[in-house]
Amino acid sequence: MEILIKKEILISALQSIHSVTDKSSVKPILSNFLLKTLDDENGIDGKSCVEFSATDYELSIIGKFPAQVIEHGSVCISARKVYDICREFQGDDIFIKSTEQLWIHVTSGASQLKLPSIDVGLYPQAVLEDLPEKVTTTAAELKHFIESTLFAAQTNESRRNLMGVCLSVLDEHTTRWLATDGHRLAQMIGTVSSAISEKVSEVIIPRKALQEVSKAVDLFKDSVEISFDDRTLQFVGSTFTIKTRLIEGKFPNCDPIIPKDNDLNIVVDRDRLVSSLKIVSLISSEKLKPVKVTITQEKLILESEKAEYGEVSDEIEIEYSGEEFQIGFNAKYLLDVLNIINGSEIRLEFKNAMSPCLIKDPVDNSFLSVIMPLRIEW
Amino acid sequence: MEILIKKEILISALQSIHSVTDKSSVKPILSNFLLKTLDDENGIDGKSCVEFSATDYELSIIGKFPAQVIEHGSVCISARKVYDICREFQGDDIFIKSTEQLWIHVTSGASQLKLPSIDVGLYPQAVLEDLPEKVTTTAAELKHFIESTLFAAQTNESRRNLMGVCLSVLDEHTTRWLATDGHRLAQMIGTVSSAISEKVSEVIIPRKALQEVSKAVDLFKDSVEISFDDRTLQFVGSTFTIKTRLIEGKFPNCDPIIPKDNDLNIVVDRDRLVSSLKIVSLISSEKLKPVKVTITQEKLILESEKAEYGEVSDEIEIEYSGEEFQIGFNAKYLLDVLNIINGSEIRLEFKNAMSPCLIKDPVDNSFLSVIMPLRIEW
Repeated sequence: MEILIKKEILISALQSIHSVTDKSSVKPILSNFLLKTLDDENGIDGKSCVEFSATDYELSIIGKFPAQVIEHGSVCISARKVYDICREFQGDDIFIKSTEQLWIHVTSGASQLKLPSIDVGLYPQAVLEDLPEKVTTTAAELKHFIESTLFAAQTNESRRNLMGVCLSVLDEHTTRWLATDGHRLAQMIGTVSSAISEKVSEVIIPRKALQEVSKAVDLFKDSVEISFDDRTLQFVGSTFTIKTRLIEGKFPNCDPIIPKDNDLNIVVDRDRLVSSLKIVSLISSEKLKPVKVTITQEKLILESEKAEYGEVSDEIEIEYSGEEFQIGFNAKYLLDVLNIINGSEIRLEFKNAMSPCLIKDPVDNSFLSVIMPLRIEW
Repeated sequence: MEILIKKEILISALQSIHSVTDKSSVKPILSNFLLKTLDDENGIDGKSCVEFSATDYELSIIGKFPAQVIEHGSVCISARKVYDICREFQGDDIFIKSTEQLWIHVTSGASQLKLPSIDVGLYPQAVLEDLPEKVTTTAAELKHFIESTLFAAQTNESRRNLMGVCLSVLDEHTTRWLATDGHRLAQMIGTVSSAISEKVSEVIIPRKALQEVSKAVDLFKDSVEISFDDRTLQFVGSTFTIKTRLIEGKFPNCDPIIPKDNDLNIVVDRDRLVSSLKIVSLISSEKLKPVKVTITQEKLILESEKAEYGEVSDEIEIEYSGEEFQIGFNAKYLLDVLNIINGSEIRLEFKNAMSPCLIKDPVDNSFLSVIMPLRIEW
């Protein structure tokens, strides 16, 4: 193999597979990536190119990048070493050439790097599959769906089926993205270009795959096809693909948890509420910062626990005409939701002082989040 | 005590004492700081103000900051809590008021923080001393002297007398700043406004104090008076002081290590050499990256060890008319020196292929560094 590639393209390609190759040394072979030339037919816009791919068995990332192919072939080399060293090269062009003894020569100007490579056959190559169920949307919308729900997914392994986002197809233009960790829930109703799901009603996509899609969203260019069966899911762009195993198991039915007919409704300035929650929660050294919320007809009052290490309170003016009440929350959960709503205002809905709190953007009905209240005794 | 202080001033004051208060919980009282009002006479420009101070016994930081004093007094409170919470306050003005029960009320707009305080008498207050030996310079020059030498000071505790920078007064306008860890040395001959040292010929200033001076240099305003005896040293600005205990012991005589009459002289582009050293050193997983330097009449060649994990080489064009030779170095030591030289070129001087390397800025004779060569066997 012999190719000439722009330094910036090589760096961007290696960054896109970084999270898969940057592993602990449990399986040293997974710290490598596969670099392969593609002929005109499989290339970009009818021109030959190179393909970078990496996998950790669970998650695979495959991207096509423009390069001048001098001699076709494929190599498997350390991602970290190529990345660290090529980033320091002064020239704009980088030559990569393999020799018969499995040594790879990487050259740029007067700088020469010689690296051992691994027999390509030993590397667990990712293969794209033709999967029956398909959802098509834009890259930007996909990122929005993921970021609106992923924060509520469970991070610890106690319930594996909650460690991802549940995607279901509601009709041929509507998808539902849903995540919960038992204490809070986030749901996004996402309108998409097309959605076809005949045999599989819902799938649970693991956190890590979604984080990668969100990070690499620009590489998908404009449109993304999400194809899946009941075990595997692929995010496919014109030159970039992320493939993941799905989480096995059944996602719980969350509909009964979403409170309906809420009579107590408050609209609050988002930035003001974020700053108040930070002020009130910082005093506590607990991870889930408990905060008491008192809602009166003129203001929303936030108070920390009255403790020997100090106490904090803050007030925000609101317009509210219902009865006064008090409710407790983990400030962190509220902050997580407020961080992903873009609007300047937030709508909080309650049935009563013991009910879960429904949080929405008052001008966008596609998103909602539910937070369970916290029993507070001060 | 009751004061009104601008939020940005409070935050900047707390940042300046942060490194002293941000301690592990070995001595919990040291996580607090002392806030004290000063009358017109001791204030800033003849107006009353507040003084923030903190100490960890070794190092003390004392700063005067403008504030409106409503009622004189002093309090001792947690630096971290006041900093974290006040930073989130929305208002520009912050009221701080103490009560008789040792509770401190911090208020800004509708936000209220109530914190327990500690009896001021229990806190180990730092007292400024009148010390006999005095050096006066500008804050910017002082920062330059420190940064030019501190990188070469020893970081581990095996030889305590090398864990700082040795300051000596050469004549009434000249100081010498010197640091070494046994493998390399950095010396700065600093011209100062005035220098008087009668009884103490040299002092060893600990790393941490110098790091703090370098960080807080803007708070010294323009001019800094360094006053010291054989045990204590103070950096005194018009409203800001850092006081430190000195390192006891004798600093080694480094003059014999600095090579003289070096016949082999090379001038290299600084940025090019930095990038080459990074390229060549990144392949090695060792902490002190060994690199082989070959100097020919046209170029300087850098090579990594030839190892099974790969090898790198790079070349830089130079003008050099002496004999060809090879020498080994720890790339990290070279990079450390190159990072603190501002000029576009670097002068490397050698006596022979076994001698220490003298590194200078070709247009500035005040600074020099010496790096011991490394035996290389490849």
